[in-house]
Amino acid sequence: MTDFTADDHRFMARALYLAERGAWTTRPNPMVGCVLVAAGEPVGEGFHVHKGGPHAEVVALQAAGERARGATAYVTLEPCAHTGSTGPCADALIAAGVSRVVAAMRDPFPQVDGAGFDRLRAAGVEVASGLMEPQARALNRGFLSRIERGRPWLRVKLGCSLDGRTAMANGDSKWITGAASRRDVMRWRARAGALLTGSGTVLADDPRLTVRLEPEAPFAPPLRVVLDAGLATIARGNVRDGAAPTLYVHARDAKPPQGFAAPRLAVARGADGQLDLQAVLAALAEGGINEVQVEAGATLSGAFLRAGLVDELLLYIAPVLLGERGRPMFDGLGIESMAQRLHLETVDTRRIGDDFRILLRPAV
Amino acid sequence: MTDFTADDHRFMARALYLAERGAWTTRPNPMVGCVLVAAGEPVGEGFHVHKGGPHAEVVALQAAGERARGATAYVTLEPCAHTGSTGPCADALIAAGVSRVVAAMRDPFPQVDGAGFDRLRAAGVEVASGLMEPQARALNRGFLSRIERGRPWLRVKLGCSLDGRTAMANGDSKWITGAASRRDVMRWRARAGALLTGSGTVLADDPRLTVRLEPEAPFAPPLRVVLDAGLATIARGNVRDGAAPTLYVHARDAKPPQGFAAPRLAVARGADGQLDLQAVLAALAEGGINEVQVEAGATLSGAFLRAGLVDELLLYIAPVLLGERGRPMFDGLGIESMAQRLHLETVDTRRIGDDFRILLRPAV
Repeated sequence: MTDFTADDHRFMARALYLAERGAWTTRPNPMVGCVLVAAGEPVGEGFHVHKGGPHAEVVALQAAGERARGATAYVTLEPCAHTGSTGPCADALIAAGVSRVVAAMRDPFPQVDGAGFDRLRAAGVEVASGLMEPQARALNRGFLSRIERGRPWLRVKLGCSLDGRTAMANGDSKWITGAASRRDVMRWRARAGALLTGSGTVLADDPRLTVRLEPEAPFAPPLRVVLDAGLATIARGNVRDGAAPTLYVHARDAKPPQGFAAPRLAVARGADGQLDLQAVLAALAEGGINEVQVEAGATLSGAFLRAGLVDELLLYIAPVLLGERGRPMFDGLGIESMAQRLHLETVDTRRIGDDFRILLRPAV
Repeated sequence: MTDFTADDHRFMARALYLAERGAWTTRPNPMVGCVLVAAGEPVGEGFHVHKGGPHAEVVALQAAGERARGATAYVTLEPCAHTGSTGPCADALIAAGVSRVVAAMRDPFPQVDGAGFDRLRAAGVEVASGLMEPQARALNRGFLSRIERGRPWLRVKLGCSLDGRTAMANGDSKWITGAASRRDVMRWRARAGALLTGSGTVLADDPRLTVRLEPEAPFAPPLRVVLDAGLATIARGNVRDGAAPTLYVHARDAKPPQGFAAPRLAVARGADGQLDLQAVLAALAEGGINEVQVEAGATLSGAFLRAGLVDELLLYIAPVLLGERGRPMFDGLGIESMAQRLHLETVDTRRIGDDFRILLRPAV
């Protein structure tokens, strides 16, 4: 492990900050930021905005021009070595005369995976990797999950009362949390590749599952995914409004009606007769989905949790009590004793308006 | 309303800080702090430690000695005008030659209630009241509740999971929250005049309901109160361990067994056949209880909440999930629609170990 200096950390922190500016647009590509530094001063910086557009390194090199010669490039991910939508960044860095590349992490994408570093080193460029790697991994947890685990990073978003209820017994859930929380949810939706719900929620709440942000904020509309084993809800709901693409996931044995034209995906049923959630996620990863945000009822949220497929829980807790008849956050967890309780780790907590927002991950 | 200076606020804040040092010992008396200031400098300060001991003003006057002459006295509560356990503080301030008294609030206690201010003014002392009154009222919310409303301030303490469960279906609740939270609870117990539970909790959890603090912290042991309509639990449990006084509250129709010697209180049953909770609280206030901390199950906690008798909710939320079969925080709230939900106001929130502690009050 190389010893990195305070300046190294400072410039990589800047590169990470820049990378995150692509959070709503880069997918399925990872977010990448780059800062070029010559004689201790930044001479060019950039981030990857969207697939097909220039990579972060290229934007930074263009900004730096001749000042890139002999400079150090700080990049949040290993520069690519293959010709994808654009030419290999490793070659561009070499051509510009960059003398040192500091990367936060190796890119596990099969067509890179060390080849970028190799190409740089072969050209005499000094290469160091691993600076602020945990932060870089956290930033691209979706992309990394897809590449390394073959499934998207799965976030369950729930709004609930202090007593852990997400709806009244009659299903009414509008609105438990405040307007500020509902605005905040939009920002999390914007970074998801897919917003996933179940047919029950479509029938009960009829969510739009779209991103509504201030008009000037660009984002790529996330895919709306409805798990509907029997294709019972295909004719209805706001998810059919055309505002974003919608994918129906159904069982192999479901019979799509005559003339059904919406995108759909047939998956096997699991042992419990429900859709095989692992298979659903594998298919979404195959389709380039990095992050899935589940906004569903207790049954589906509980099924994902029980299957061990939840990577993080985004909880908005409103300072209200809905009472013991309200609907639970998760159904079917099958926890019988204290020893079986699920431990979570708090990643972030803050007040959003009058509500509490807590981001948690299953404790390992 | 007098205009108070920044210095006035500074010295009153100090007096409030001192007053709170009596939180675990002064009851049934209010907490009171006093700072004497001459020529802009504090010359003596004190707080009331326990009933029968010197009042805050007397402690401060003793510390100041001759320097009290011409000084300003900052007191968190109107100086008394009557001879109780000690002589009237108003007279002591006059005798010491104090020229100005700044009080945070008038003392609603019937034997004071303006008489202290009157006596000071009659002796030519300048009097101003109302500086930082909200803070002073918050400090003595228990005492003020007892004097002004004829019932103690009622705090419900609950430890629960993120999904709002206080125990497993089988009743097991040891331990949902962490050791740091359980230590923190002791500090809240220490300031309560009574720790109240129900017979169900005695049977299920067998709590000790005592204050266990680091040995050097003095406190007056709170009264343990068991609501047990039929006196079913009198022969059992840690509440009989003699470590603190225990009061059984039962229905008028209950038959105490032969030779039953523990303190007990008979109250009427309400319309629902359960103990009349208003009557219970009135009796506790009569007995000098300022603050009651309820540590009970969902049934009793819910009954207090439904009756509108809960003044604050002290919630420890552990980052765990117990699942939909766990016991709710409150039972019997009878909330059927979103419009009936109970709104709470967040007073304070912080992390205690891995848990979240939230102090809330019903929104008015």
